[in-house]
Parts: sequence; C-alpha cells; structure tokens
Amino acid sequence: MDEIIKKIIQFRDERNWKQFHDPKDLALSISLESSELLELFQWKNSQQAIDQNYSDMRDEIADILIYTLTLAYDLNVDVMDAILQKINKNAEKYPIAKSKGSSQKYTALNEYGRMP
Amino acid sequence: MDEIIKKIIQFRDERNWKQFHDPKDLALSISLESSELLELFQWKNSQQAIDQNYSDMRDEIADILIYTLTLAYDLNVDVMDAILQKINKNAEKYPIAKSKGSSQKYTALNEYGRMP
Amino acid sequence: MDEIIKKIIQFRDERNWKQFHDPKDLALSISLESSELLELFQWKNSQQAIDQNYSDMRDEIADILIYTLTLAYDLNVDVMDAILQKINKNAEKYPIAKSKGSSQKYTALNEYGRMP
Amino acid sequence: MDEIIKKIIQFRDERNWKQFHDPKDLALSISLESSELLELFQWKNSQQAIDQNYSDMRDEIADILIYTLTLAYDLNVDVMDAILQKINKNAEKYPIAKSKGSSQKYTALNEYGRMP
Repeated sequence: MDEIIKKIIQFRDERNWKQFHDPKDLALSISLESSELLELFQWKNSQQAIDQNYSDMRDEIADILIYTLTLAYDLNVDVMDAILQKINKNAEKYPIAKSKGSSQKYTALNEYGRMP
Repeated sequence: MDEIIKKIIQFRDERNWKQFHDPKDLALSISLESSELLELFQWKNSQQAIDQNYSDMRDEIADILIYTLTLAYDLNVDVMDAILQKINKNAEKYPIAKSKGSSQKYTALNEYGRMP
Repeated sequence: MDEIIKKIIQFRDERNWKQFHDPKDLALSISLESSELLELFQWKNSQQAIDQNYSDMRDEIADILIYTLTLAYDLNVDVMDAILQKINKNAEKYPIAKSKGSSQKYTALNEYGRMP
Repeated sequence: MDEIIKKIIQFRDERNWKQFHDPKDLALSISLESSELLELFQWKNSQQAIDQNYSDMRDEIADILIYTLTLAYDLNVDVMDAILQKINKNAEKYPIAKSKGSSQKYTALNEYGRMP
C-alpha cells in the first residue's frame, strides 16, 4: 500500500500538480470518477454491464483509488488504520449474531445507518 | 493490501452479505459514499471543511475504499495491477516535459481527457 | 414555471442566502440531492424502493428541482428554452425511424453519446 | 410546466423507450447528469467554469431537468405540488427571523439538516 501511494504521489510531483489538488476538488473528482464507473451500469443489469465493459470498470476502479489515496495522503489519513477502525465500528453496529443473512434484517439495519 | 482486502471480505462473509452485493449496487454505493465525502465540503472552502469535519472525512474515505476494494474483489480485479497500469497510461498521456506545472497547460490537457 | 421559480428565489432572498449560493456549490448540491434520491434505491429493485420510500422520493425530486432551477436562474438560463433545444438536439441524434424500440438499438445508440 | 412534460414524454413514446426507463435507472441517470454538470466546475472556480463552459452548463441543466421530470411523471409525482410543499417545509425549518443572513447561522442550520 505504501509503495503504491508513493508511486501515485511521485507521478503528481513530477508534473508539479499538487498546486491544483485542492482537497475539495479532489473530493469532487472522486465523486466524478465513481459516476463514470456507475455509468458503465446504466440501462443494464450487472451481468450485461460486466460483459460489455469489464476493462473500463478496471480503469475506473483504478481512477477512484488513485484520487482517494491522493486525498488521504494530502489529509494525512493513514488509510490502513482508517479502514481497520471503520471495520471495527461496523462490527459493533452489525454484530454477526444479529446481522447474519436475511435481506430483511439487512434492510432493517440499513435504515438507521449505512451498511458496509 | 491483500491483508486489508481479506479483512473486508471476511467481515462480509461472516454476515453472509455477499448475496446483497450485486456489482451494480456496489458501484452505486461507491458513488453514494463519495457524495457523503463531498457533502462535508458543501458551502465551505477546503480549509473550513477540514477544520470542521476532519474525522468524518477519514471515515468516508474508509467507506469509499471498503466498497471499491469489495467490488474489485468480486470482479477479480487486481487493484495493484490496475493502479500501476493506469499510472503508466497517464504517464504516456501526460509526459513530464509537456505537463509540468502551469495550470493553463493542466486545464488544456484536461479538456481532452481525464487527468490524474 | 416562472411562478415556481419566483417562489424559490423569494424564499432564498427573504433569508438573504444568495451570498452562499456560489454556482459551483449549487452544482455540487444538485449532485448531492440526486445521490439522496439514488440512495432510496440502494440494495433494492425499483418496486421495493417505491413501496418503501415513495414519499421521500417525492421530496428528493423536489430538492433536485429547487437547486437546479436556482442555478439556472443565477446563470440566466431560460429552462424552457434549454429543455426544448435539448429535445430538438436529441431528436436529430435519435431519429424516430432509427431509434424506435429495441433495447439493442438503444444500447448501441447509447455507446456514442448520452441518451434522453 | 405541463406542456414541457408532455413534450418530454412524447419524445420518449415516439421512440418506444419507456420500456428501458426503470425508475432505479432513471434515478441513476439524474445522478450521472448532475455529475456531468459538476465536471464543468472541476479544477476551476465558478467564474472560470462559467467563462469556459456556459453553453455546456445550459445543456446539462436541461438533461437533469428532462430526467427528473420523466421520473416524476412515471412516479405520478406532481412536481409543482412537490416543490411548493418542500418550500413550505423548509420555511418552517428555517424561519426568516432565525435564518436571515450570516453564514454562521447558515452553516449551523445546515448541520442538522439540508438547506434549500
């Protein structure tokens, strides 16, 4: 992870682009890239979308990760820590015994909060 | 990276939630999480947003990464490879000599293509 | 239409809120509201979503329209004209004879451009 | 308003496209169009964006409205009613006396709810 972040930041610094990377614009860019991923599924079910656009999906996933890791770097967020802590929070919110399996429970849980 | 992906998938599998993770809904969820991150910047400049919402930003970044890594896993996308290849593509599109520095160039480049 | 736009702007002006309505933030707000609408469909098919969230859908549609009409007003865009012109553009791009009916054609058309 | 909705639906029906307009996909499309509008502001402040992309903004605003009015029509939502009711709800939430003017109040209000 550290190595890939280093490569992403190196790419940017070689081009002297940090000056344009206002955090608000980076957050906006993550949202735009995630819309481009979502667009690959427009008017299609998942299987049709995957059959037609697999390689583009791969690229859009990379774009989302590149921007998200860049923003995290600029905000001094340790992404490994952040993810692990979020998983722990989610584990408290959705204990295995209560959350396992049925879509009804899943939906119900979903109503008072996000679901991972 | 592999380790963190394993933890994310383990969390899901313990709850038997893969059945709900249709790829189209995962892509939609990445987009929703990225909107929640963006919402932290609404009506504010970056500095105001960071001062007021730093800890929430950290959580939203984690959520975006969790969903993106989950979708990548389900689609058999190797994220390290995908990112490296995308950086290489971008390096060809934006050679250092041509792309370095000025916002004018940056914007110009941006007009016929995404920019990392 | 004019009447409803007048009411929206009057609401804002009574609160002296125009000062916060930077166009970039309004565009961002339209995107956030549309995500809130989309969230009502997360992990559900359309029928399930409508059954569970009809009244919220109505509210989110109103929010999207309020922000979009506000931005249009601030940019001096006549929305009736803009819509009619867009329909005419679309009619040229998708002539009835060529576009009618099959999802295959629809998808094919969709590949070199947006579809209305 | 009724007239413009009629034109939008007529355009669709002449092409026999209602069959593709699943409400979830329409909500997704509104979100995608609003991202295209937002993209016109990426890496720019509002004035730069307007100077460079005014005509595209007009088109994207039209696209958002076309999809939103289409979804409203399909869900039997009367958009005039929905907007007026939302304005009334907002007027109760943000009474003029309390809400007028300062960005501090505005931000504070914003924290426990959306703002119009």
